[in-house]
Formats: sequence, C-alpha cells, structure tokens
Amino acid sequence: MSHIKSMIDAHPKQAGDLPADQLAQAIKACLDCVAVCGSCADACLAEEGIEELRHCIRTDQDCADICLATARMLQRQGGHHTAVLRPLLEACVAACRNCADECERHAGMHEHCRICAEHCRRCEEACAALLVALSN
Amino acid sequence: MSHIKSMIDAHPKQAGDLPADQLAQAIKACLDCVAVCGSCADACLAEEGIEELRHCIRTDQDCADICLATARMLQRQGGHHTAVLRPLLEACVAACRNCADECERHAGMHEHCRICAEHCRRCEEACAALLVALSN
Amino acid sequence: MSHIKSMIDAHPKQAGDLPADQLAQAIKACLDCVAVCGSCADACLAEEGIEELRHCIRTDQDCADICLATARMLQRQGGHHTAVLRPLLEACVAACRNCADECERHAGMHEHCRICAEHCRRCEEACAALLVALSN
Amino acid sequence: MSHIKSMIDAHPKQAGDLPADQLAQAIKACLDCVAVCGSCADACLAEEGIEELRHCIRTDQDCADICLATARMLQRQGGHHTAVLRPLLEACVAACRNCADECERHAGMHEHCRICAEHCRRCEEACAALLVALSN
Repeated sequence: MSHIKSMIDAHPKQAGDLPADQLAQAIKACLDCVAVCGSCADACLAEEGIEELRHCIRTDQDCADICLATARMLQRQGGHHTAVLRPLLEACVAACRNCADECERHAGMHEHCRICAEHCRRCEEACAALLVALSN
Repeated sequence: MSHIKSMIDAHPKQAGDLPADQLAQAIKACLDCVAVCGSCADACLAEEGIEELRHCIRTDQDCADICLATARMLQRQGGHHTAVLRPLLEACVAACRNCADECERHAGMHEHCRICAEHCRRCEEACAALLVALSN
Repeated sequence: MSHIKSMIDAHPKQAGDLPADQLAQAIKACLDCVAVCGSCADACLAEEGIEELRHCIRTDQDCADICLATARMLQRQGGHHTAVLRPLLEACVAACRNCADECERHAGMHEHCRICAEHCRRCEEACAALLVALSN
Repeated sequence: MSHIKSMIDAHPKQAGDLPADQLAQAIKACLDCVAVCGSCADACLAEEGIEELRHCIRTDQDCADICLATARMLQRQGGHHTAVLRPLLEACVAACRNCADECERHAGMHEHCRICAEHCRRCEEACAALLVALSN
C-alpha cells in the first residue's frame, strides 16, 4: 500500500473529494486484482482440466481489464467525473463479484483460484465502499 | 470494420446473444476511440495553451482506458455477463459523452479535438445502441 | 487509416523525426493486431480442440500486449526516445513474427487464425520498416 | 510481493525456466512502476509548472505502458519465447532508466517524481537481472 498512499499524498490535488484512505485501498485492490487475475487466467490455461476452466479464464480476463481501467481513472486525482466513475465502479464491483464466484467453485482444486477469489472479494468491497463515499 | 466483423463471424460462438452488426460497430467504435483519444491527449500535451487543456487530457485518458476495457470484454464472445457488461457499457457511454463535450469546446481551435469529439460521439451512440440490444 | 493519419497531421509536432506515412502505417498495424489477436485468443479458447491451442492463445496475448504498448508509444509524437523505441519495435517485430508463425499452423483449420496471421505479418513488416527509418 | 510469489508457485508450470524469486521481483517491480508512473504523470499534469513537465509526463506514460506489457508477458508462465522476451526486457530496462533519469531532475521539487524515480530504478535493476538469468 505504502507507495500508492504516498503518491496520493504527493499529488497536488491529493485525494480530491474522495477520502484518501479509501481511495488508496481501492487503487491497491484494483491493481492487485489485475496481477492476480492475469496469473490465474494463465494458470487455468495450463491446467489439465482446461475444458472446465474456459469460463473461469474469461471472467479472470474481464475482471483484470475492468480493474485496470478503474485503477487508472482513480489515479487521475485532478478531478473525477462522478457520472463516469459511478458506473465504472459498479462494473468493477460486478466483475470482481463474478470472478470471485467463479473462482470459488474451483478453489478446492486450484490454489490459484482460491487466491484469486480472495483478492476479487477484497476489490469488490473496496470499490463498493468507494461508491458509498461517492454518494455522500 | 471488415477485420473486426470477419473475426466475429470466425469465432465458434459468433456474436452469441448480441446482434453481430451492432457488436462489430461497438468494438470498432471503442477501438477507434482508444486510438483517437490517445493521440488527442498527446497532442493537447504538446500545445502552447496546455494550461487550459489539462482537463481535456484527463477526459481523453479516461475515455481511452474505458473504451479499451469495453472493447476487450465485447471481443470475448464466449458468453457475456450482462451484470458486468451493462454497467461497463454505461460507463463507456458516459466517458465518451464527457470527452466529446470537453473536446467540442476546443474543436474550433484544435483539429485533433474536433476529430476526437466526432469519434467519441460515434462510440457513445454505438455503445448506447448495444445497451438497448442487451435489454431486448 | 484515415483517422490515424489525420491525428498525426493534427498533432503540433506532426510526425516528428519519423516519416508520417510509415508512422501511421505502424500505428494502424499495431492497433489492428491488438484487435485481431484479442479476438483470436478468445476464439481459440472456445474451440473444441483447445488443448492444442493453449500455446496459440499465449502468443496471441503476448502479441496484443506488446502491440498496444508500441502503438501508444508511437502515438506520443512529442519526442520519441530512440533508446527505448528501438528495442520496443524489435520486441514488436518478434512478437508478431512469433504469433504469425503459430497461427499459420492452424490457418487451414481455423479462419480466425488465418486472419490473425495475416495481420501479424503486416504489423511485423510495418514495424520493421519503422526500425529502418529510425536508423537513417 | 507475497501474492505475486504465491501465484507463481500455484501455477502448474511454476516459474518455468526462470528463477522464481527473480521472476516474482521483476513482475512486482513492473506492476509497481505501472502504478507509480501513472500517478506521477497525473500529478505532473496538475502542477503549476506544467510547461517544464511535458517531457516527464511522456516518459512516465511510455514507462507505464511498457512495464504493463512486460509484467503481463512475464506472468504467462506456460512458456516464454526468449526471442520476444529479451527485446521486451531490454525495452523495459531502457524505459525505466529513461524515466528515472527524467524524474530525478525534478525530485528535489516534486515528491512524486522522487518516489517515481526510486521505483523506476528498482524495476530497471529487476529486469536487467532477469535478462542476465535469461542468458544463462
């Protein structure tokens, strides 16, 4: 977290209208999801039972792409457009929930899916918390 | 358009539940926006009056990031999750509208903003049309 | 091509030290590769014979990621660092060659691989041509 | 690091031919650079003396794009193509060095540039170390 929070504080506009701690948590959670979902997709692709994992690969990839776009928009602290940020955070919450649900189904069999589900849940919560902060 | 439409038709699942022509148009419009918004952001960065263009650069970047995530999710034709795709398309429509509005303000002065606004409007429409198709 | 070339011409620095037509061709070829490789990866993932296509999916994904980074760097016309651009173009040429070689092996069986190989070859050539221009 | 290293170990192919610790360090360093360079670019864009920071913004953006492509390729542990990975790592080393050099020039004035330079140097080293490992 430290380097993300330090960068928020070093930005001329700091966290803008958003609470800095929640912003840092959401950015970190999104970037961790990009990393973990990317790895999980490739690990699934290398598994023997790949036929059952096609769907999981796609939910991983969707989640990684949406989390990356969300992290990048959140990092632009010079002024967030609520009309854009709100549906993007909603898409991110939905993508993380979707990926966590799917990965949990394989968590007993594949450690990468277990770890991935865990990070997706954390990102789902961090983005949901930011959505609440955005409404206040 | 041709290579995008050809790839949709060559996919084992084709366009899935979505109308193929509208899907192709949305993917193409999103990818064109990625290209044009990316160029417009860098062109703004090189302009003399950059102080007035900071905001435009950010809306360009937000739009490019969200359009890229949207194009990538749309290209995964093996089964779209409506619960994720709907808010993502809404975010894309909002980002394109936002960027078109901002670029139009500089369109008389900067040709790159004029072209950018035009492509953002096209993408806004293509994604809005896909949202309607998704509801049917 | 037209919108990419128009954006290059509308940029305050235009094509900088690079020949504008070759720059436009390389940017277009890279962005087409992003689109086509992304689709080909997902189409392969949906094929019955997926076990034989794992490798093809990865080469598609590597190629898409590297082409995207290359297109983005090329679009920043405000001054290209040759020390960075040269190895990136070399990586892009290698990734496109690699992906074309792999997709050509499945081109008779999968139309998406045939189209993908074709676009990768075109991008390989466009980036190789830009490398030559960079040396002059 | 922990989640990145855990994912490498959970992958069916583990780190493949590469040393797992160095692979994990390079992936983590690249992803940290994506985060920090992205923030630094937007912080520069919000600074009063933006005219002097245009170049810094571009080097930040080039570095973020190349580090992202590199991280993604490294995460595909199912088999790395040395002919592609080598020039990509070289591009990543060059982009990080370039960005660190530029940010260091503003490090006394802008804390975000100081932090960014630090992470770029770390990524330059991690990728250079992986290049050496690749040659053995």
